[in-house]
Amino acid sequence: MSAPLPIVRTVAQLRARVGAWRKAGHSIGFVPTMGALHEGHLSLIRLAMARADHVVASIFVNPTQFGPNEDFDTYPRDEARDAALLGGAGCHLLYAPEVAEMYPPGAFTTVTVSGVSEPLDGLARPGHFAGVATVVAKLLNQCAPDIAVFGEKDFQQLQVIRRLVQDLDIPVEIVGGPTARAEDGLALSSRNAYLTPEQRVIAPRLNGVLRETLARLSAGAAVEATEAWATAELLSAGFKSVDYIEARAPDTLARLGPGPAIGVIRVLAAARLGRTRLIDNIGNG
Amino acid sequence: MSAPLPIVRTVAQLRARVGAWRKAGHSIGFVPTMGALHEGHLSLIRLAMARADHVVASIFVNPTQFGPNEDFDTYPRDEARDAALLGGAGCHLLYAPEVAEMYPPGAFTTVTVSGVSEPLDGLARPGHFAGVATVVAKLLNQCAPDIAVFGEKDFQQLQVIRRLVQDLDIPVEIVGGPTARAEDGLALSSRNAYLTPEQRVIAPRLNGVLRETLARLSAGAAVEATEAWATAELLSAGFKSVDYIEARAPDTLARLGPGPAIGVIRVLAAARLGRTRLIDNIGNG
Repeated sequence: MSAPLPIVRTVAQLRARVGAWRKAGHSIGFVPTMGALHEGHLSLIRLAMARADHVVASIFVNPTQFGPNEDFDTYPRDEARDAALLGGAGCHLLYAPEVAEMYPPGAFTTVTVSGVSEPLDGLARPGHFAGVATVVAKLLNQCAPDIAVFGEKDFQQLQVIRRLVQDLDIPVEIVGGPTARAEDGLALSSRNAYLTPEQRVIAPRLNGVLRETLARLSAGAAVEATEAWATAELLSAGFKSVDYIEARAPDTLARLGPGPAIGVIRVLAAARLGRTRLIDNIGNG
Repeated sequence: MSAPLPIVRTVAQLRARVGAWRKAGHSIGFVPTMGALHEGHLSLIRLAMARADHVVASIFVNPTQFGPNEDFDTYPRDEARDAALLGGAGCHLLYAPEVAEMYPPGAFTTVTVSGVSEPLDGLARPGHFAGVATVVAKLLNQCAPDIAVFGEKDFQQLQVIRRLVQDLDIPVEIVGGPTARAEDGLALSSRNAYLTPEQRVIAPRLNGVLRETLARLSAGAAVEATEAWATAELLSAGFKSVDYIEARAPDTLARLGPGPAIGVIRVLAAARLGRTRLIDNIGNG
């Protein structure tokens, strides 16, 4: 049995721990999360451990990236379970700040990434990516790691963060971790816990339709017609609504088509099963 | 004769120099400027030298903080003269990036500070403080100094930067340097070079009226009536127009009055002499 995972809750405590490692000449890897950890998060921890001497994970359910009718209040929280999983994976430190530590009264600064944050979830979740960009800028400045690992499952978020770090010259390398999946293809997500058994049977079709969409596009099918087919396919599989299923250029998230797609393709989707919103994406490069 | 001041033009070169000092355990002070240096800037360099082992100055005339009808194109630029002044003051390194180094194609991230950036110059110069906040966030992340020194002459800018650094958890201490003045009270400014001899005679009244305004408010005069008196005084002294002359709370820049001011007061003014816009401010705490 290893020692329990140390937990810090303030920026000052975090900086003291990381500063001591830094002073000893060690490198630091950072994995920001919202908790409710699953195998996908743990794969990011292992990726960070392979690249850095010490790994810090953060758990912070960031209120500013949730819309007024979204699931901030009900988002699953179980710090003891999360800490045990992180410790078991070899993580060295958990940073779990309170909201008041992250957003003290009088905080008025917002980081906005235009372009890559505007389509897809930028349309479906107004303000979401400004909340993400601001909290990630804060977390990166608080921890000052050498590398920070984010999951490709939130592909648009990953590209927003890459843009943010490059544009603001934050001295960190952003590493994308592959999406962890259940055997039937469903992308692991903390929100999968919301699914009823019936919805859980339908859910993997999101990945299935994404793969069929990419295969059709790779074979030369027209983008707009294929997107329309994919939307219909998800609805007929039992999804209540489809926010989007679209082929985009991976770096800029610029629209492809309407005709056959040229170059590298990323297909991204968001669809609802009952009140649960699932996202997923796949690419060919 | 000392060795000429080393000049670097890229983020990579800047980080290599600063990183070597950091590795040796030395502290770094940073003085961002737009060049056209005068004794006010040099006093900031000396302040940084008293507080840090090595001092980096930057010269970058930042296009994103100028409005379309402002003086970006005509802003005075003389790098050789600036470098000589910096070297003479003991500065260790000049960072002078090109616009393409600071804003490569595809840069889309903006830092916005609401609240403190909204009144005064925030109204008079739309977009100005978003430009300032974004470039200062970049410069601080590029240089990663222990302290950064900004002049109190741009008092609202200083407060925007303090807010930005606190809100985004940028690990740097912001130090405000007192305003350097000519013997007649005129605040030193690169834009004073625009003044005709006749305007130069009128210009010190900006500081004179600020001082009389603060004296009246400190003696219990009503804020709004005093501001109206001060505006009239500047116009009758020969200023073409007055953008504002207002008493504000120093930290938040919240409006004081309309009655007598309570607590610490900062009086800020912007007024035009011909086509030249001058700003100044004074406080009692």
